[in-house]
Amino acid sequence: MSAAFAPWAETVWSSGVASGIKEEGAEDLGLLVAERPMGFAGVFTQNAARAACVEWSQSLLGLPVRAVVANSGNANACTGASGAAAVETTAVSLAAEIGCHPEEVLVASTGPIGVPLDVGNIVAALPDAIEGLGRDPEPFARALMTTDTYPKFAAASGVGITGVAKGAAMIAPNMATMLAFLVTDAALEIPALQDELAAAVERTFNRISVDACESTNDSVFLLSTGLGSVPEHGAFAKGLDEVCGSLARQIVQDAEGATKVIRIVVSGAPDATRAVALGRAVAASDLWRAAAHGADPNWGRILAAMGAVDRTLDTVAVVLTIGGEVVFAGGEPDPTSLGRAAQAMSADEFEVTVALGAGDATAEVLTADLTADYVTLNAFGTT
Amino acid sequence: MSAAFAPWAETVWSSGVASGIKEEGAEDLGLLVAERPMGFAGVFTQNAARAACVEWSQSLLGLPVRAVVANSGNANACTGASGAAAVETTAVSLAAEIGCHPEEVLVASTGPIGVPLDVGNIVAALPDAIEGLGRDPEPFARALMTTDTYPKFAAASGVGITGVAKGAAMIAPNMATMLAFLVTDAALEIPALQDELAAAVERTFNRISVDACESTNDSVFLLSTGLGSVPEHGAFAKGLDEVCGSLARQIVQDAEGATKVIRIVVSGAPDATRAVALGRAVAASDLWRAAAHGADPNWGRILAAMGAVDRTLDTVAVVLTIGGEVVFAGGEPDPTSLGRAAQAMSADEFEVTVALGAGDATAEVLTADLTADYVTLNAFGTT
Repeated sequence: MSAAFAPWAETVWSSGVASGIKEEGAEDLGLLVAERPMGFAGVFTQNAARAACVEWSQSLLGLPVRAVVANSGNANACTGASGAAAVETTAVSLAAEIGCHPEEVLVASTGPIGVPLDVGNIVAALPDAIEGLGRDPEPFARALMTTDTYPKFAAASGVGITGVAKGAAMIAPNMATMLAFLVTDAALEIPALQDELAAAVERTFNRISVDACESTNDSVFLLSTGLGSVPEHGAFAKGLDEVCGSLARQIVQDAEGATKVIRIVVSGAPDATRAVALGRAVAASDLWRAAAHGADPNWGRILAAMGAVDRTLDTVAVVLTIGGEVVFAGGEPDPTSLGRAAQAMSADEFEVTVALGAGDATAEVLTADLTADYVTLNAFGTT
Repeated sequence: MSAAFAPWAETVWSSGVASGIKEEGAEDLGLLVAERPMGFAGVFTQNAARAACVEWSQSLLGLPVRAVVANSGNANACTGASGAAAVETTAVSLAAEIGCHPEEVLVASTGPIGVPLDVGNIVAALPDAIEGLGRDPEPFARALMTTDTYPKFAAASGVGITGVAKGAAMIAPNMATMLAFLVTDAALEIPALQDELAAAVERTFNRISVDACESTNDSVFLLSTGLGSVPEHGAFAKGLDEVCGSLARQIVQDAEGATKVIRIVVSGAPDATRAVALGRAVAASDLWRAAAHGADPNWGRILAAMGAVDRTLDTVAVVLTIGGEVVFAGGEPDPTSLGRAAQAMSADEFEVTVALGAGDATAEVLTADLTADYVTLNAFGTT
């Protein structure tokens, strides 16, 4: 599956080419260029082992930018001085080609960690990437793919926001292991862009988990041409949520080896922080995710996951449903509903709801099932 | 593999029978009885969704005990009022049979969560279990097994401590999902027993992880006949560490679906808490455990796991080895060592060392590889 692509905002162009970082001529280098400087907001991984490109792009927050160079096939993380030099060489090279300052060039990478990056591949491929620039985001989105099985795109219906993303594993709630690039023509100042983006990321990308493994390279970029009108705040936030939410959901749908989406809805929490923490705990449980794969309504693993992070959880107050079937309430299991719950779990997507009876706060977290294929996909590859 | 069993301390007897909780006549009920009251210390899961039997046994801390009834095939967790009644019925029934107070009977359970327990099976099987009492711990250890592939036993060489355990999944560092029963003739008062046990558990069972899933039923029981001499503190602590350490290691070796033990040694930490937290983070990484399965030296996943829990980690100060091969130091990867690291990872057990260069504290955490078999084992079963 893949969303239908639509063009970027006016004056924004992109391309995707094969630079030789990946083997066998696979597309691995994405280039995005704007005709004029764009406002830029970004949210980045908080991992202490973050990549050289994350350090670089994060340092440019607050400045206008002209371009993005993004590669797949190598994360350029934990690659030391040569990794940092590779980022700078990339920015300097592109800046010379398109006539801007190197500090107007954002850089992003995804792929294996700790493998020295041959920046010569990138530099040599830049002219082709410039030559190939077009209005369709799809080649750029394809060049970001690692184990993704389809490129990810979303557009807001009300306001002018388009976005692409990549991600399929090393996806944890606190910034998914992913890259996302959002483009808008909304005329917002940079601080407003940053506030809008941070809020949208918290409500969308930070509410998904594939394997609870936080990445070294997670980055979400929001770029604004400023050529449009000043948007109404509510409409812009809604549009941004729509695009980020769609891309986040596509990442979970494309989770490595996964066969279904699990929607975990926690309600009745004393505050949002608690609701999110409990939802994330369920999404991080290997045992529950394995049971989900087998359509086994082993709801005890949900309670155990929550009870491990919240020592004060009152299980007697909890009402737990799977696929709309109450499996546990008032401290008592209901074995008669397990057959129907199992049936609901065999769908492509199903919902778990946990009503805590302890307040009014709610959170929804998306995850995917844990499969033997996920393990196999991640067991080999570095040597 | 299985350790050679040796008899319990004098005056302690046990047995294992099939009560019908498990299907097809499998042993599922263990009974341990002492001729005289024993001192008792216990460490229990902190999970908010803990089982009725955990609540019961924990409430008896500080009192002398005469017996333990332990069943497999049903965790009796999240089973409501009938679950609590089942525990009481078990204790009352055994107390009547052997002539003691119900509050001298410890109860423990392991198996699926949330399945109503038919206590009639247990009550009906108690006479047979009493009839079968013997000095060999093995039938008792076998009756505790769920997905364990062998019964687990250990004895201290210097002092008189024998122990059995069960556990193969839902094993998290903060009390592994497991049951362990330790018997000694050391003449220690109950508060001293409790202190010794708590310290030993922190150094052993709390340093293992299979799937980072904390259980509803984890319990470690230390029972003392008091018939021996007053032990020297250092010798007793050493013996207890020896027994608990051996049982903990056996649990990791028998981890569901696993093929190898991964020993994670964190050194140079500012304090023990940080060292343990970082070791646990590595042990909880699905991505690293999957790579370990494939003998893929994907050490970036180790750094990413640590960087996610310690935002201030100075990666440039880190020296990371796999199987004795330095793969990352001074902020730089060493790709030339990957082949040798991969070779070391293909053994039944290998070591990862992480020197932080930030202090003198150390911790060792054991985990196992993540395999497709683990997923398959946990994907089906409740309905």
